[in-house]
Amino acid sequence: MKKDNKNFDEQIVPLRDKIDSIDAKILSLLAQRQEQVEKVVALKKTHSIPVYHPAREENLISKLRLQSQNNGLDPDFMEDLYRVILRQSRVEQTQKMEHKGVKPNAKVLIIGGAGQMGNLFAGLFTKSGYKVRILTEHDWDEARNLCRNIDLALVCVPIERTGKVIEKITPFLPPTALLADLTSVKKEPVSKMLASHGGPVLGVHPLFGPTLTCLDKQIIVVTPGRDETACQWFTEQLGLWGAVIVTSTPEEHDEIMEIVQALRHFATFCFGEFLCQRQTKLARTLEFSSPIYRLELGMVGRLFAQDSALYAQIIFATKERRALLKEFILSLGRHVEMLETNDTQLFIDKFNHVAQWFGPFSGQAMRESTFLINKLIERF
Amino acid sequence: MKKDNKNFDEQIVPLRDKIDSIDAKILSLLAQRQEQVEKVVALKKTHSIPVYHPAREENLISKLRLQSQNNGLDPDFMEDLYRVILRQSRVEQTQKMEHKGVKPNAKVLIIGGAGQMGNLFAGLFTKSGYKVRILTEHDWDEARNLCRNIDLALVCVPIERTGKVIEKITPFLPPTALLADLTSVKKEPVSKMLASHGGPVLGVHPLFGPTLTCLDKQIIVVTPGRDETACQWFTEQLGLWGAVIVTSTPEEHDEIMEIVQALRHFATFCFGEFLCQRQTKLARTLEFSSPIYRLELGMVGRLFAQDSALYAQIIFATKERRALLKEFILSLGRHVEMLETNDTQLFIDKFNHVAQWFGPFSGQAMRESTFLINKLIERF
Repeated sequence: MKKDNKNFDEQIVPLRDKIDSIDAKILSLLAQRQEQVEKVVALKKTHSIPVYHPAREENLISKLRLQSQNNGLDPDFMEDLYRVILRQSRVEQTQKMEHKGVKPNAKVLIIGGAGQMGNLFAGLFTKSGYKVRILTEHDWDEARNLCRNIDLALVCVPIERTGKVIEKITPFLPPTALLADLTSVKKEPVSKMLASHGGPVLGVHPLFGPTLTCLDKQIIVVTPGRDETACQWFTEQLGLWGAVIVTSTPEEHDEIMEIVQALRHFATFCFGEFLCQRQTKLARTLEFSSPIYRLELGMVGRLFAQDSALYAQIIFATKERRALLKEFILSLGRHVEMLETNDTQLFIDKFNHVAQWFGPFSGQAMRESTFLINKLIERF
Repeated sequence: MKKDNKNFDEQIVPLRDKIDSIDAKILSLLAQRQEQVEKVVALKKTHSIPVYHPAREENLISKLRLQSQNNGLDPDFMEDLYRVILRQSRVEQTQKMEHKGVKPNAKVLIIGGAGQMGNLFAGLFTKSGYKVRILTEHDWDEARNLCRNIDLALVCVPIERTGKVIEKITPFLPPTALLADLTSVKKEPVSKMLASHGGPVLGVHPLFGPTLTCLDKQIIVVTPGRDETACQWFTEQLGLWGAVIVTSTPEEHDEIMEIVQALRHFATFCFGEFLCQRQTKLARTLEFSSPIYRLELGMVGRLFAQDSALYAQIIFATKERRALLKEFILSLGRHVEMLETNDTQLFIDKFNHVAQWFGPFSGQAMRESTFLINKLIERF
């Protein structure tokens, strides 16, 4: 047996060396590829052409899938691999493109620029050649000066202070300045901005946290308030930074966010709170976990890694939200009897009804999450 | 502007051609890499050496990270890429290795072999050189014959029939045959097997659905019943098929599964049911969705893409489970007052308490889920 293992070691070393040398060649080709991509970026920059070119990407993937079959490689594997390569290439292109300003030298005032989100946007604007001024809560004496000749005033303060800050800043704004906010509710701030300021108004809600370094494919909802034409350059700039822009009304936005933010986070909070209450043995539980559970528990853990005050803000933001969450709790109460009577048939009926309502989304969700589960298995 | 675009097209075509030719070279190197990996597999097979070699993988990754820095490539990107390549290589190796039988020619009876899970295991055993016999519900007249000289009887029937099937099959079993089941609860089936059969007994719970084609890194919990030595070959075989084996007692297993399966699925069911009740506009909601919400909603949709009867079984399996779920609903009820009184401070206190309890897991969950969110952005 020992001799056998020695034999194995002797035979495997040259094979591994060969694999290592192939890997070195792949690496050098990837570096060459990156060089070419950089040239493409430079060209796109000169011609102000957007980074993301879906048709070119899909084309490239189809071609590679075909070629891999001819080379005895699994096309799904090849696609996986090139999605990683293309994303990297897109991120690099975006990082280089984001310097491009739609309205360079325009003056931007970030109100709450010392906060994380204000800071993120201050950085983006600065890189793109804008003149950025910051107003923190200690600078109100300077407000008149800071507002002089500005093109955009961007309100980035916590929800509960947004209304007051809007009222406080508007007397100093030039009448043609664009007034926008980044709050995660839109009805109140937008109507407050419209009431206080006579110029262009735009509600903006970036659907991501302030820790991002790149807006690539991140969603930003904009809810136009007044004079869309005058707001155009700002929306375009967000797009050039890589974000996907979704346009909505403040009402629709808030209604959807009740679900997307308040309800989902609250449900996750309740789940985590129950696990804690029962003192569940997390570590052992994870050893027993299928990747899907690991992923779901990860979503719960993720929430609690973040700022409690921020989530309190999001969840308790409006009385509509709080009413919705109460309704949710009551809807759960209606399942108690089904559990007490062990009525599996009722469960099956309810389940099938919901499944029908979800329709084709379920199948898609299954595919997407299976893809992710494989990624999780790959990595951890 | 038009002339400008023409100019751009002329300049970009040669760059894209160059990128395409680099991609073709990478593809051919990947095919060469696969050839070498196949030789490694053949060698491992001869020497009965397991496929997964964590140290070699981590070694390779570290080396590549270093090399990428020297080549101006992002090490994280390189790691991402090679995780995909290594997984593919592992899957291929596993698929080739799984033919290897620990106890080839042993006789295996799959009870419920017409079901999906029975079918999956019948296929795995057959490929590994075992003599597989199938007993479906129509074959009970043949039971005595089918059980003659078998080495393993594997019960793969739905939970509610497991007990009866165990009682029915044991009179026909050779006294030395290993009796095992694949049910997702373990206390009842294992004690039933121990009571009915005097030979080796093993409880087995594969934590995955029957649609898998490869057990690579999938978790299987085993709960030893009697004569672990005589069960050894079966556990080893599961490992050789690529699964990760976790050993537990039936009691611990069931307690953890109350959380991992029943509670999590039930919470997901409740969330989906509420969305359906409110007739939420799913499609528009998704347009407004940050990747994390898309992922979370995907988890919900995923549940409803699956078999309602299966989930009814899992959720209602035992009275302990139903009691736990009732307790969960009641725990949510305790949050109503906090919502009614808009008590954000209480929310923050509860949140921080849970966050502390989650401890380092939160940070890890944050990293893992961020990784997955990036994958999701990459792909969809």
